[in-house]
Amino acid sequence: MIYDLIIIGGGPAGITAGIYAGRQRMKTLLITKEFGGQMAEKATEVCNYPGFEKISGAELIDKFVEHLEKQESVEIKFSEVGKVEEQENIFTITTTENEKIQSKTVIIATGADPRPLEAVGEKEFIGKGVSYCVTCDGPIFKNKTIAIIGGGNAGLEAALFMTNYAGKIYILEFGAEIKADEINQKEVKNSDKIEIITNAAVKEIKGGQFVSSLVYQDMSEGKPASAEASARRSKTLEVQGVFIEIGTQPATALAKGLVDFTKRDEIIVEPETFMTKTPGLFAAGDNNSGPYKQIVTAAGEGCKASLAAYDYLRKTK
Amino acid sequence: MIYDLIIIGGGPAGITAGIYAGRQRMKTLLITKEFGGQMAEKATEVCNYPGFEKISGAELIDKFVEHLEKQESVEIKFSEVGKVEEQENIFTITTTENEKIQSKTVIIATGADPRPLEAVGEKEFIGKGVSYCVTCDGPIFKNKTIAIIGGGNAGLEAALFMTNYAGKIYILEFGAEIKADEINQKEVKNSDKIEIITNAAVKEIKGGQFVSSLVYQDMSEGKPASAEASARRSKTLEVQGVFIEIGTQPATALAKGLVDFTKRDEIIVEPETFMTKTPGLFAAGDNNSGPYKQIVTAAGEGCKASLAAYDYLRKTK
Repeated sequence: MIYDLIIIGGGPAGITAGIYAGRQRMKTLLITKEFGGQMAEKATEVCNYPGFEKISGAELIDKFVEHLEKQESVEIKFSEVGKVEEQENIFTITTTENEKIQSKTVIIATGADPRPLEAVGEKEFIGKGVSYCVTCDGPIFKNKTIAIIGGGNAGLEAALFMTNYAGKIYILEFGAEIKADEINQKEVKNSDKIEIITNAAVKEIKGGQFVSSLVYQDMSEGKPASAEASARRSKTLEVQGVFIEIGTQPATALAKGLVDFTKRDEIIVEPETFMTKTPGLFAAGDNNSGPYKQIVTAAGEGCKASLAAYDYLRKTK
Repeated sequence: MIYDLIIIGGGPAGITAGIYAGRQRMKTLLITKEFGGQMAEKATEVCNYPGFEKISGAELIDKFVEHLEKQESVEIKFSEVGKVEEQENIFTITTTENEKIQSKTVIIATGADPRPLEAVGEKEFIGKGVSYCVTCDGPIFKNKTIAIIGGGNAGLEAALFMTNYAGKIYILEFGAEIKADEINQKEVKNSDKIEIITNAAVKEIKGGQFVSSLVYQDMSEGKPASAEASARRSKTLEVQGVFIEIGTQPATALAKGLVDFTKRDEIIVEPETFMTKTPGLFAAGDNNSGPYKQIVTAAGEGCKASLAAYDYLRKTK
């Protein structure tokens, strides 16, 4: 059997693509490891998806999934896709269990994963004080001192969330200034638990069984010119937890060979239809080259990609 | 006083732009005649906005408006904008009451109005049997025979809605085939109240005090070669109501001089930021040149335009 459409990914882009595919009665398979993507994992409280003034990421994703499950022509399969190949306008998806499934069109809506800091000790202490998800691990750090790496929206929002738990919170930003929404900056300034350190290049995370400190270099005078200067500007913070919030890495390796990538591994798409350079292959949401990654924009892109896939099928059938 | 942002329009694009402007704490004015746009007027039941399996257009717009009203930095003004002008990077908005208001950026989210058919008698019988809105006027036609002009999604959805009221429904499509979502086509075929007539060029709407009939020409053999052929292929349907559902006309006249238009009067935008050719001026939703006009895509575009306006302000201030 050959599907009309395979959607890879179960975040807001993939689910919305599925809802629209169902409306078009396309024979569709949505494959995902689990539902929600970053929205379920990271967004404790969603305040910016229009129609819901304030809702937890988990609740919102439940509503999305219920909506998807009503679509009769859409099957759901819990699995991971290893690669996507194309031959004579038919796509073949290979799952990590080595199952092969065919389709006339594919929407890649795999989103993005947290970007690692690549500091010494980072990998070693994952699950022992190093985390990429305050929602998941925040409550462990009750009354502890923690550092959040990254002074963008994600970092500031993580810090604000952690004021519910931690006793003291440092935000370490590599650049000379914080680059987050003003509403977040204002709230951070109003919290007496949060201290911002800019020009901070994190070098090492240290500890025994668990994280006990973090070493960073003060870059406010530029790169140190000598080992002696480097040592002088090296600072240590006693922290029991380190949350890394320096952005995301698009999950796009599965599309290699069929699409072009930006320097940041994002899939390059035509910005009105979200079609990649391979006809019939689309990329919607956080994994593509477009700016402004939000739940509502991912949903809008999933809708457009789904309608564009339908148009593509009508034109080529 | 000069606003950071003026948003013109209160449909899903304008409201979402307002929610995001509030999150950015931009000093914002949203101007609209009324909330909802086509969503409140036309969408009886919304089944495709992710998160709400089934909701009336009016209820969904209420939820959007509640969400908007929570944004402290956003003022709302009920008025109509006549024109937008720009001088030295400051925009001046003139309302139809001749009030002038200034802003550093503007998002035009004025949506679209129903497109008239331009048949003889159409204007004359508006409110006397001719309508552009089944949601508004449908219930009047209980057990009557009606015609719906237009075989796209809007026409078929209008016909399906009217099965709740009318006794008999004709769908007249100018082209040789129906061009609607398959789910709509299937439902229409399952209804014994609905009859589809393709190749039908509507010429005249007739009646006394109210509509009593509709005249169309059968175009299945192409354009009639003589007056005699034309008369032979002229057909009359006895109907008491005519709903015109042949698409929309973007409400873009206010932007003349500052933007480029497509042939269909849509505002041409850069498809990632929704900026027009005038820096600081954006167009989001049904009034721009992008494809796939849905509630969720309008919302996504409103979000992107709002974040792009914020970026533009940061870069130029």
